[in-house]
Amino acid sequence: MKIVVQKYGGSSLATPERINSVATRIKRKVEKGYKAVVVASAMGKTTDELIDLARSVTEDPDPREMDMLLSTGEQISVALLAMALKDKGVKARSYNALQIEIKTTDHHTSARIVDINVDRIKRLLKENDVIVVTGFQGVNESGDLTTLGRGGSDTSAVALAVKLSCPCEIYSDVDGIYTCDPRLYPGAKKHKYITYDDVLELTSLGAKVLHSRAVELAKKYSVELYCASSFSEEEGTYVVGKLPEWLEEPVVTGTSLDKNQVKVTISNVPNDQRILSKIFEDVAKANINVDMISLVPVGNKAFLSFTIPEGFEKSLKDTVESTLEGLEDWNLEISKGFVKISVVGVGMRSSPGVAARFFKTLSKAGAHVELVTTSEIKISCLIPEEFGEKALRLVAEEFEL
Amino acid sequence: MKIVVQKYGGSSLATPERINSVATRIKRKVEKGYKAVVVASAMGKTTDELIDLARSVTEDPDPREMDMLLSTGEQISVALLAMALKDKGVKARSYNALQIEIKTTDHHTSARIVDINVDRIKRLLKENDVIVVTGFQGVNESGDLTTLGRGGSDTSAVALAVKLSCPCEIYSDVDGIYTCDPRLYPGAKKHKYITYDDVLELTSLGAKVLHSRAVELAKKYSVELYCASSFSEEEGTYVVGKLPEWLEEPVVTGTSLDKNQVKVTISNVPNDQRILSKIFEDVAKANINVDMISLVPVGNKAFLSFTIPEGFEKSLKDTVESTLEGLEDWNLEISKGFVKISVVGVGMRSSPGVAARFFKTLSKAGAHVELVTTSEIKISCLIPEEFGEKALRLVAEEFEL
Repeated sequence: MKIVVQKYGGSSLATPERINSVATRIKRKVEKGYKAVVVASAMGKTTDELIDLARSVTEDPDPREMDMLLSTGEQISVALLAMALKDKGVKARSYNALQIEIKTTDHHTSARIVDINVDRIKRLLKENDVIVVTGFQGVNESGDLTTLGRGGSDTSAVALAVKLSCPCEIYSDVDGIYTCDPRLYPGAKKHKYITYDDVLELTSLGAKVLHSRAVELAKKYSVELYCASSFSEEEGTYVVGKLPEWLEEPVVTGTSLDKNQVKVTISNVPNDQRILSKIFEDVAKANINVDMISLVPVGNKAFLSFTIPEGFEKSLKDTVESTLEGLEDWNLEISKGFVKISVVGVGMRSSPGVAARFFKTLSKAGAHVELVTTSEIKISCLIPEEFGEKALRLVAEEFEL
Repeated sequence: MKIVVQKYGGSSLATPERINSVATRIKRKVEKGYKAVVVASAMGKTTDELIDLARSVTEDPDPREMDMLLSTGEQISVALLAMALKDKGVKARSYNALQIEIKTTDHHTSARIVDINVDRIKRLLKENDVIVVTGFQGVNESGDLTTLGRGGSDTSAVALAVKLSCPCEIYSDVDGIYTCDPRLYPGAKKHKYITYDDVLELTSLGAKVLHSRAVELAKKYSVELYCASSFSEEEGTYVVGKLPEWLEEPVVTGTSLDKNQVKVTISNVPNDQRILSKIFEDVAKANINVDMISLVPVGNKAFLSFTIPEGFEKSLKDTVESTLEGLEDWNLEISKGFVKISVVGVGMRSSPGVAARFFKTLSKAGAHVELVTTSEIKISCLIPEEFGEKALRLVAEEFEL
């Protein structure tokens, strides 16, 4: 039995016409001899609409009931998609997470998949050509519905592919993974192959092609991922553990721009691990995401910089002031109007000089670098917003992206 | 443990405000010491919207997938209602038919309940004050979702009350059961008590207060039914097996008017059981509902009259012509513009003369009676439309309704 998992995102299923078009694609796959497990997201903006509905009933919706509510979105999609498939003569049936036993942890609104009743799916695939399964949701030990958090349908699809030992195709409104955002740099190229590691860095940098938990899972179990558009016939991108040998590994595989960054600098705090930890602890408690942390100790004092998203300035100021209450001489500076530009590439590991080329290009764009963070396969710099797009273009040219 | 089943219809849950108002009513019941099993219908017009959505995907939606789709409507309601209850400090949880194991037959879109896992509900009621359960839906032996057909939520509620041996309260936008439609006769009175049998006749006559399967079930297991409005505090109507002894049993408990009736007369057909059966068989196959059948045999010929709803005239003509093809001398007459006026009352059984008073009143209204059908507790007459409302008023006055 040749099995494939296909996942279709919300925009791919946004209208009755789109649902029929997706059904036709699935039918073609079946005609090629495949049995398909199709994972569907909620149609278009359904999830957002359900969240709004809950908020109009109560300001603080109970998470268990929120999951009960949100999981209807995917159930609507799978029922309609199975109808469309049957209408086209395909033997298809839809199932929700309770029926297919997608077992998760107990964390409502952000559960993790722990097991799937794969024997049931294999039995169902003997009687049917297509099993349409609700993405994004699962069931905990008490039999309550759970959801996996934003983008969780990707994870559902990869988890099914892991359990069925088969490849996984992710269809969305994006036709593959590019070297950088084509809207910002029209010369951007599409990767035919890219490694899990590169995608993970690109995803966390804001290139929202694939949900990062899904890529991690695919990497862990070496599931072959393919992402393409459900709106066109163009070839997409294969996400793999290692690039094919005939393909020369590029040093840098992508560059990205994250806007609306706020730089925070706290100077002259005591260089005391307990105080520094306390700052980050309190900031996390205030639900503020911290990025690009940089710490410079000078004698018994320390200079601490990091970035936060726009909109949290007031809350950060209150938090830091309360954390450092009673201490003297420290100073807090918060400045808006920055972007984070990054280059990513597994090839960087074995290729020195990328940082130098990157900095030189940024300086050519006229951009002063305010903060730098690096990982083994990524370098990110914080620069003033006005230089962002020019810098991205020059970086894309420099690294032939 | 004092348990009550409450059912709230679609219009009672149509908006976030209505949901919060219903939650407040449920909370008051809990404060009186009750554990409540609340059955919820889909919000407002949700079911119709889902049917339209399915029809825009395919003209002929698969019934299994239709049930998978429609059952999301009630799941949205129960999640929102449980949220509203928790928000008001009530220990509540929502469950769908898969979770609560409402087992049904296999007939998609018109399944019948065969069992409910009542031990599970009792366990859940120990930990919670309110269990909110999806009405209208169940699960068949294969674990597929089924639905019970229009108005099925009433049946869900009564079935739960049967299994829990407790009373059942049905809330809707109607504040009880009246002697006749108050929109047609402002003097209509609300019953405080009425028998199952009278309600069954009234329901099938078009007074859509309660779903008839629900009333049959309540009658079979002597479940005390109470119907009232969720929009007001007015006392509703108790539906019982026998009226309280102190209450003098009225002879006639209600009168109703069914509009848009078409009279069909087939004269001079052979008085042959096979031919007559064939007519009704073929008409049923053409999906035409036949009512008020009257047959007069004259020698070896028969005169057959019955009524059908408006809109089926052409289809009926084609059917009868094809059934009687080859036979001679028969004649088909189809005439529109009639209404069916009925009086109902368990008391009729022991009280002669109701028919005479009814006919006399109709004649006082100037209405010629075209067809008559009677049951033990009901008399219906077909009269021309123009006399309908006047006749209803005079009948209501005659029988003090």
